[in-house]
Amino acid sequence: MKQWNVGILGATGVVGRQMLKLLEERETPVGELRLLAGPRSEGERLRFRSGWLTAERTEEDSFAGLDAVLGAADENISRRYAPAIRDSGAVYIDNSSAFRLEPEVPLVVPEINGEDVLTHRGIIANPNCSTIITLMAIAGIYRLSPVERMTVCTYQAASGAGKEGIRELENQMIALTRGERAEHRVFPTQLALNVIPHIGEEGPDGFTQEEKKLQNEGRRILHAPDLKVCCTCVRVPVLRSHSIAVTLQTREPVSPEQARQAVRLFPGCRLVEDRQGRNYPTPLDVTGQDLVWVGRIRRDPTDERGLCLWCCGDQIRKGAATNAVQILEQLIGA
Amino acid sequence: MKQWNVGILGATGVVGRQMLKLLEERETPVGELRLLAGPRSEGERLRFRSGWLTAERTEEDSFAGLDAVLGAADENISRRYAPAIRDSGAVYIDNSSAFRLEPEVPLVVPEINGEDVLTHRGIIANPNCSTIITLMAIAGIYRLSPVERMTVCTYQAASGAGKEGIRELENQMIALTRGERAEHRVFPTQLALNVIPHIGEEGPDGFTQEEKKLQNEGRRILHAPDLKVCCTCVRVPVLRSHSIAVTLQTREPVSPEQARQAVRLFPGCRLVEDRQGRNYPTPLDVTGQDLVWVGRIRRDPTDERGLCLWCCGDQIRKGAATNAVQILEQLIGA
Repeated sequence: MKQWNVGILGATGVVGRQMLKLLEERETPVGELRLLAGPRSEGERLRFRSGWLTAERTEEDSFAGLDAVLGAADENISRRYAPAIRDSGAVYIDNSSAFRLEPEVPLVVPEINGEDVLTHRGIIANPNCSTIITLMAIAGIYRLSPVERMTVCTYQAASGAGKEGIRELENQMIALTRGERAEHRVFPTQLALNVIPHIGEEGPDGFTQEEKKLQNEGRRILHAPDLKVCCTCVRVPVLRSHSIAVTLQTREPVSPEQARQAVRLFPGCRLVEDRQGRNYPTPLDVTGQDLVWVGRIRRDPTDERGLCLWCCGDQIRKGAATNAVQILEQLIGA
Repeated sequence: MKQWNVGILGATGVVGRQMLKLLEERETPVGELRLLAGPRSEGERLRFRSGWLTAERTEEDSFAGLDAVLGAADENISRRYAPAIRDSGAVYIDNSSAFRLEPEVPLVVPEINGEDVLTHRGIIANPNCSTIITLMAIAGIYRLSPVERMTVCTYQAASGAGKEGIRELENQMIALTRGERAEHRVFPTQLALNVIPHIGEEGPDGFTQEEKKLQNEGRRILHAPDLKVCCTCVRVPVLRSHSIAVTLQTREPVSPEQARQAVRLFPGCRLVEDRQGRNYPTPLDVTGQDLVWVGRIRRDPTDERGLCLWCCGDQIRKGAATNAVQILEQLIGA
């Protein structure tokens, strides 16, 4: 198979490092791998295969000769370099929210709408982490009967706020066990031994940006322009991996047993039925692997077309880096 | 005002100790206060007003001369001593789940159905902690238009599992910050840096006992036999105070602004609109006080008769001890 020259924009962050590891683990056919970072991380060395790579400072001309760029930077950095990436001729697979809602940019979860990759015009967007995990969990059920409505509550890990989020939670835990005050800067208040029901800026309807992503992105990924979602996004003191409680309404009734079978058969999902006597995953169970684990599938007692379930996924892997690398692999193989 | 002689059954547990503190703080007109405990806690001394009280071992004849007994013991202990309490002539205000669904036992949240106290025949039940907090948050809205359906996800603290639950979470935090393994015995798996979506035993429909309480108890407290609730109960690594995300459907549409006004005016509630730039409470904010704090009231975008909100309450105080002491005060004043 031909090898692609690949860049990682934002290579030294949590998601960028995970992309690097995945390209090695999955033996993705990569020729040159170029690590691009901000000025503070220039010169940082990261292991790749049998050697070391040095992060370069990102410039407008950093993308020459690349076939694809995996974007692991924030929205602003992404918008800034997207034109230069496009001009270089590389395909940009972007994990930020910058282009997710642009009509000509496909938004892809390979197991769900992989065929949309082929419609790209230079940019492919990777969905929000909670969106990927939730849609993976319901996609098998969706194929039995389209999901029309969802009510979703999230239990999101500190790592959703990057390296600084993880470090802040760790430092707070250490301070509290020493009897000291827990300082906060990344999160709006103490996260250790607490939960914070507010992620991102709030719109006039009272929903935060994070809470709108599942509806807006879900409509594009599922090709379901009428999908309605009511979402409450909550940060919990977990280092890594998100959990989501989903209540959904399908067009036609789907039984819990049919739903279990659909989840069991859906690629990238694992149905948890009896793990050490447990029928549910926890964020610790799913950390460090790529499957979305689903459990506690039951009939919604308030709605004859309703089901509820619980799912967990490593949001740095399947919720971000793995999904982007899968898109890259699909392009290389296309 | 006349003084009542009061016993606390299970006086040395988390809820029992809180009851003792509340009787002092609130200057409840108590004459004799008798602390009753299990054999392991016999002889334990607890401060009350200017002196000390010693916990006695509970026996069948421990209740003689009492006007009321506050129950802070588990379901089995409660069932065991209820006949002796009744025979002694004392009113039994029980915090366990033993009698909550018995038709002749009133189940009371004083702000919501305080008048039901008067119908008692010797036993009054105190509702489940998450039920009290959720119903307090929605009761003002309920008076504008009855709530017909709710979808609820909880974020419940370790203290819901008593002293042992609190201690286990603290010990796990200490172990993890030392780089050691977190042991578990009270919870089914590690709770620190994790969440556990399963509280109590599971029925054939897949819902746990804890998840059924809100519907079963809510119907009795609100006198709403058709109320339907779909609940997912999740333990989070918080020491004390529960949080609940509620999506509800009223019979007639209620606007978010009407709902805010109703919560603002409802006794025992506090509407959080702008606390240090925040429009939401966290469990740390509400710990150690009696109000249920409510925030993030918004229109459910999937349902024109739907609203969603976030609430937090100290489940040892208003979710248990305070509610029981309020019932006692209502009896004394009646």
